[in-house]
Amino acid sequence: MAIWLDHGSEEFEQRFATFLTTKREVSEDVNAVVRTLIDDVKARGDAALADYSLHFDGLDFAVTPMRVGSEEIDAAIEQVPSEVLGALRVASVRIESHHRRQLPRDDSYEDELGVILGSRWTAIEAVGLYVPGGTASYPSSVLMNAIPAKVAGVDRIVMVVPANGGVVNPAVLAAARMAGVEEIYRIGGAQAIAALAFGTETIAPVAKIVGPGNAYVAAAKRHVFGTVGIDMIAGPSEVLIIADGDNDPEWIAADLLAQAEHDRGAQSILITDNALFAKAVELAVERQLKLLSRSETATASWQDFGAIITVSALSDAVPLANRIAAEHLELAVDDPDALLLGIRNAGAIFIGRHTPEVIGDYVAGSNHVLPTARSARFSSGLSVLDYMKRTSVLRLGPDQLRALGPAAIALANSEGLDAHARSVAIRLNLEG
Amino acid sequence: MAIWLDHGSEEFEQRFATFLTTKREVSEDVNAVVRTLIDDVKARGDAALADYSLHFDGLDFAVTPMRVGSEEIDAAIEQVPSEVLGALRVASVRIESHHRRQLPRDDSYEDELGVILGSRWTAIEAVGLYVPGGTASYPSSVLMNAIPAKVAGVDRIVMVVPANGGVVNPAVLAAARMAGVEEIYRIGGAQAIAALAFGTETIAPVAKIVGPGNAYVAAAKRHVFGTVGIDMIAGPSEVLIIADGDNDPEWIAADLLAQAEHDRGAQSILITDNALFAKAVELAVERQLKLLSRSETATASWQDFGAIITVSALSDAVPLANRIAAEHLELAVDDPDALLLGIRNAGAIFIGRHTPEVIGDYVAGSNHVLPTARSARFSSGLSVLDYMKRTSVLRLGPDQLRALGPAAIALANSEGLDAHARSVAIRLNLEG
Repeated sequence: MAIWLDHGSEEFEQRFATFLTTKREVSEDVNAVVRTLIDDVKARGDAALADYSLHFDGLDFAVTPMRVGSEEIDAAIEQVPSEVLGALRVASVRIESHHRRQLPRDDSYEDELGVILGSRWTAIEAVGLYVPGGTASYPSSVLMNAIPAKVAGVDRIVMVVPANGGVVNPAVLAAARMAGVEEIYRIGGAQAIAALAFGTETIAPVAKIVGPGNAYVAAAKRHVFGTVGIDMIAGPSEVLIIADGDNDPEWIAADLLAQAEHDRGAQSILITDNALFAKAVELAVERQLKLLSRSETATASWQDFGAIITVSALSDAVPLANRIAAEHLELAVDDPDALLLGIRNAGAIFIGRHTPEVIGDYVAGSNHVLPTARSARFSSGLSVLDYMKRTSVLRLGPDQLRALGPAAIALANSEGLDAHARSVAIRLNLEG
Repeated sequence: MAIWLDHGSEEFEQRFATFLTTKREVSEDVNAVVRTLIDDVKARGDAALADYSLHFDGLDFAVTPMRVGSEEIDAAIEQVPSEVLGALRVASVRIESHHRRQLPRDDSYEDELGVILGSRWTAIEAVGLYVPGGTASYPSSVLMNAIPAKVAGVDRIVMVVPANGGVVNPAVLAAARMAGVEEIYRIGGAQAIAALAFGTETIAPVAKIVGPGNAYVAAAKRHVFGTVGIDMIAGPSEVLIIADGDNDPEWIAADLLAQAEHDRGAQSILITDNALFAKAVELAVERQLKLLSRSETATASWQDFGAIITVSALSDAVPLANRIAAEHLELAVDDPDALLLGIRNAGAIFIGRHTPEVIGDYVAGSNHVLPTARSARFSSGLSVLDYMKRTSVLRLGPDQLRALGPAAIALANSEGLDAHARSVAIRLNLEG
């Protein structure tokens, strides 16, 4: 069902190039609607939010308040099975301890002229976290987005989540509590993004908005970018598995399907040096597909975007992997380190036969918000740095200004910027 | 001419809030034109570039080749005054040594379960650098954008610069040579951005595009974002100066004007606790304005967006500075450290009376590409990290998978993702 590509065949380069550029998402043009929603929230604030919630979520804020109360969170946690609460706790602790290692250090030093140069990192003051509603309302994503913000030192984290009929997934509320998020509003869509960016009577504006969402949410984030910061616009997920013939085909098939079940646009790719193994994986995929509750989604993804690429040597997989620049890359081979050295473009790498990508989705401690759709060529997964910003600090005395000033004046003059030149010259008595 | 705000007055909060949200740019809607240009370059490659260069820059590639030759760069350098070359060298050395300190370290550690977690930083493979033409063609910007890319380890830096009549500013070519940029094309506008993002017969595509440009360039960068990474969309520049009454008003006036001369949308703000000093600065600004070759631009900027804010104590300036979140912040006071501690939002801070912002524009070593228009609330100046990306690396053995697997399975099941659960369970023999 998936596409087969043989690295040794004549038409490989052309077919692979086409494969790389195939779009896996229909980008709906929702900009006009989104613009209207945003303008209305800017103009009418809470009243607009109330109208849209009634319209889209059947939710009357006069009955069910916009803000989720603390007691409601307590009650929700009671409903979550203890096994799930325990697993969320395991995940929380590991995510926090991994992300603490990402905290940047300030720098300050005096150079040979006596100029003091520094870099100071500070946390963003307020961040908004969008959590999708319905089946895509994942507690794991709440932890992955909120905990790094807490670690960074963000003062205020505001969560918004659409709540059809008023109900928020109890596990999402439990995850929010664990991550220390207490300001939660039952709103969603472009209108929630507008409320976070511009503020309303009830919701103070934030400086950055993160979290996944549908086409309307993505368009709204692009629209408010500049007024606030945004994280990446998440695209459909992908996995690339480089596997030798010594793997259990059922394991590799399961990993391919763990990606495919996410979304019809998700992509699962196998590269192997063993064509018989590849065939066995394909058969295992077909068999396992039937067992899945999300079989329809996974089937569509595998059929439309799945790929099996055969190479004559595993080392041939490395340049292909760098061109694919997968969000997730599994190295299920005997000597993963030989391949690892050459890998440059990947969101996250999962090494060896006992590191399925799913471990990274939930409990490894590393972040599961990773660059999709080949963007690992130029971007990274979510980290503590995404919730901080760096300020340069510069300190000169009269001697340092005398030493550096003339070069600054020469450059300012060559660029035709007199006032720039004067600002230095006047301090050096070089100008009247 | 500039607006005066008195922090003690009753209407301050309202006027300050309005001041903060005043737009300083007309955003032209050039999307339709830009889309056409991009589609055409995608479809026709070099031929489209040749047509647009003839049309927009009066440049015939049959006569003046698209790529700037190495001998042409040699010849250009001969034309640059030795004083300017020397200043560019001073700047280059300092920029490189400052940015080397930003190189991130890889991390790899084994946790108490024996899970190995790592973060690997790698350079982006290829980066495009847009350099504007005409009077905004600044050699200093070439150094500021290209040197951090070199330090990061970017393999290929491609510079594009529109060349009306074929001529590229010799100082720009000299700066490119110093920064190690050898692949330079005489193209500009949205068509150059399209060529960098999608490639043509001559120009191999890059993974990220940086550098300032006009409304067409900015719209094109937004448009190709996703296919490639982009840096921030630069807005009009700003300076905030917190100054006590002991400064020479002429010095502070010169600093305000160094900002104002950039652009009609630039903004210069003075906060002081001394109203007489404020008045003296205002008079000095008016006097100095007349001396500038870019007087018209600076006058418009000061008149439309300049501001003088008086406070009763300098400490009152700190929360205002955090709300303004200026690109450049000068602390021209006796005890700058008292204020520095409280500053959270600023692109760069210039400390003391002998650190005019202009030193940072050229020769301090820190980067002059900084967050504008209040975006210092959520973003940072350009750094080596902008040319690198981080890959998470995860390695579990059977024991670690046994320890963490059950929690992953519990979360996958609670999120309704069977294939996720199966991918772990199958390795633990928990599933048939």
